[in-house]
Amino acid sequence: MTQLLKGNMLIAQSGGPSMVINRSLVGAIQEAKKHKEIEGIYGSLHGIKGVLDEKMIDLRKETAANLEAVAATPSSALGTVRKKPTEEDSLKIFGIMLKYNIRYFFYIGGNDSAETTHIINEKARKINYDFRCFHIPKTIDNDLLENDHTPGFGSAAKFVACAVMGGDLDNRALPGVKIDVIMGRHAGFLTAAAALARVNPNDGPHLIYLPERPFVVKQFIEDVKRVYEKLGRCVVAVSEGISDAEGSAIATKFITETDSHGNVQLSGTGALGDLLANEIKTQTQITRVRADTFGYLQRSFPGLISETDAREARIVGELAVRWAVSKDSDGSVAIRRKPGKKYSVFFERVPLKAVAKSTRHMPEDFINKAGNDVTPAFLEYARPIVGPLPKVASFKGVLTPRMG
Amino acid sequence: MTQLLKGNMLIAQSGGPSMVINRSLVGAIQEAKKHKEIEGIYGSLHGIKGVLDEKMIDLRKETAANLEAVAATPSSALGTVRKKPTEEDSLKIFGIMLKYNIRYFFYIGGNDSAETTHIINEKARKINYDFRCFHIPKTIDNDLLENDHTPGFGSAAKFVACAVMGGDLDNRALPGVKIDVIMGRHAGFLTAAAALARVNPNDGPHLIYLPERPFVVKQFIEDVKRVYEKLGRCVVAVSEGISDAEGSAIATKFITETDSHGNVQLSGTGALGDLLANEIKTQTQITRVRADTFGYLQRSFPGLISETDAREARIVGELAVRWAVSKDSDGSVAIRRKPGKKYSVFFERVPLKAVAKSTRHMPEDFINKAGNDVTPAFLEYARPIVGPLPKVASFKGVLTPRMG
Repeated sequence: MTQLLKGNMLIAQSGGPSMVINRSLVGAIQEAKKHKEIEGIYGSLHGIKGVLDEKMIDLRKETAANLEAVAATPSSALGTVRKKPTEEDSLKIFGIMLKYNIRYFFYIGGNDSAETTHIINEKARKINYDFRCFHIPKTIDNDLLENDHTPGFGSAAKFVACAVMGGDLDNRALPGVKIDVIMGRHAGFLTAAAALARVNPNDGPHLIYLPERPFVVKQFIEDVKRVYEKLGRCVVAVSEGISDAEGSAIATKFITETDSHGNVQLSGTGALGDLLANEIKTQTQITRVRADTFGYLQRSFPGLISETDAREARIVGELAVRWAVSKDSDGSVAIRRKPGKKYSVFFERVPLKAVAKSTRHMPEDFINKAGNDVTPAFLEYARPIVGPLPKVASFKGVLTPRMG
Repeated sequence: MTQLLKGNMLIAQSGGPSMVINRSLVGAIQEAKKHKEIEGIYGSLHGIKGVLDEKMIDLRKETAANLEAVAATPSSALGTVRKKPTEEDSLKIFGIMLKYNIRYFFYIGGNDSAETTHIINEKARKINYDFRCFHIPKTIDNDLLENDHTPGFGSAAKFVACAVMGGDLDNRALPGVKIDVIMGRHAGFLTAAAALARVNPNDGPHLIYLPERPFVVKQFIEDVKRVYEKLGRCVVAVSEGISDAEGSAIATKFITETDSHGNVQLSGTGALGDLLANEIKTQTQITRVRADTFGYLQRSFPGLISETDAREARIVGELAVRWAVSKDSDGSVAIRRKPGKKYSVFFERVPLKAVAKSTRHMPEDFINKAGNDVTPAFLEYARPIVGPLPKVASFKGVLTPRMG
């Protein structure tokens, strides 16, 4: 039996923004309004930093119309942070929780944010603080354990597929080698989504490199040369997180900035794309080599979402609140897929510990044997999550008979 | 009086692709079908290269449905080229024109392509080849002389505004300095369009640097520091073509590849963004500095267009054919804007020479005095060309009263 726990609710966002993280936030807020156990609804600014600084906003003061407008806005409306609480932080946090009578705590984010939620929840148990605590899943990387996929991935994947599709059309028009660098620190799902750009034979991306397989420059050059010789062009999708056989990221040869979860900065620089382009230029006869790094656009582009992703992002926010109030004291909301041809999901509570910290990788059967492409199984997995893509077409192209 | 000139038509695309260049192409093809003077409708593959190689496709063999599907597809469906014809090329081209009885020639592109069209047209006059020759405007750079704006700009500008808007929301959530590098070799119009991303006070971009004004690193650092001190963050839009006081592009310190029109490669690398980010990191105390280079996405992203741009792109293709058949022997189709509050355009024939080669720059009154922003006059100019942008919102954000 669950007892009625009355008090205030605190919600926050953490880790990288996404196109739909505000849908989870607003889903949770709107659900909270339905439960009389929940009195104040506070939003902490920039994750747990806002708790520590006592910078919280009153979300009951937001109109329903503005809440819905925020839901449709990309990026984290409460601000976000990459911060793992220290022992001292955790103690301070509970001083503040007590002072503000926070009895419901929701933290929206990826595996690092789940770790933070877990740390805070464990501290609550230890100090016997009566408290309901849920993690709400979000990550464009799609690398949360226990989940079939995560809110944020579908929309980011749609952006990636569109960008690669456009880049492939551009590369057809002005042939050469084109390298697209895509986010994904340890998991290749988002880079793999580039494969959705293919519609017709010979459409790019022709090669896909993921963090799950060691990246060998010599093999990469040979792969590119082979495609280029066949098609006169080559489009490559490569994850920012590709690593050598020893497991050290290729990009870290240039960059050394890290956050408090120990993550190295891989995004916000074109260095990896330029490095790979330079390898092609110097080791082959190919002269036109270009690299685009999709950067922050793939997680914050406005007006572009997967409808499925948007819907599910809302639901996980709602469910976290519903479960916290009526059923369980803690956990994370996981998305599971029902077996079968037709896409259908259900949601389950999983322990915080089960999703915290660790990374889910691309399953073996989603990657081809050569380690330079995805399999049809991945496409089947990803298509319903991403939804329909823009239709593009090319000329049938009947050559005029050569004269004279 | 115009005489009836019977023969085949050849159309081609040249220079950088755009999101709407195929609309001009299909507009011209569909218009050509209405005129009995035009017999065969051929598309040259990769601009004049396809003429020289005699690689042309029969566009009458394309179904109307496929033509419309191609029209809605970004990038140059016939392939494109960056090639200025030599004297020898021009002679060879007319051997082929004669062999295939090409009497109507249309070349879709920017100022370099207009120069090519002009060279070919002058050669036709010199050798007394009976010939109608039109340039159809296209450039995301918006830098064609004689035009209020050019097809391709509105859609690319919409992409840029959306990307900067999303990047600004991301930067609000995770503060720091964000540098967005935008296409534009000599003209700042596309970079300036970043300003359309602003909705509310303190929205980015906070600084805009254009090729029209000398870029002084010291001033840039001071500007960024000033904004950062005020807002705790700073979003910068910078043109890939920014140059120092001596007129040499900042990016060319790294890149040396040129095409036959003498243009240096500025796109397809993150080097400029990384250089500027590094200047901030080393010369200030600001630690989180990120750069995104929008690259080819801004000219080839599918499913994102300005409706105005798409409509006008179609019209210039249609008009070129109509004018070539019924009225004039050569020229370019220019877009002019009627004075007045309500957006309205008309189209005029201008001599090829008037649009060839030279670049139109941002008018003085579109740039602020400090050279680090645009003026309201620019926003008024650009808004109707770009059309509505996605709606984004933020919380009213009433802080909870501090307790204890």
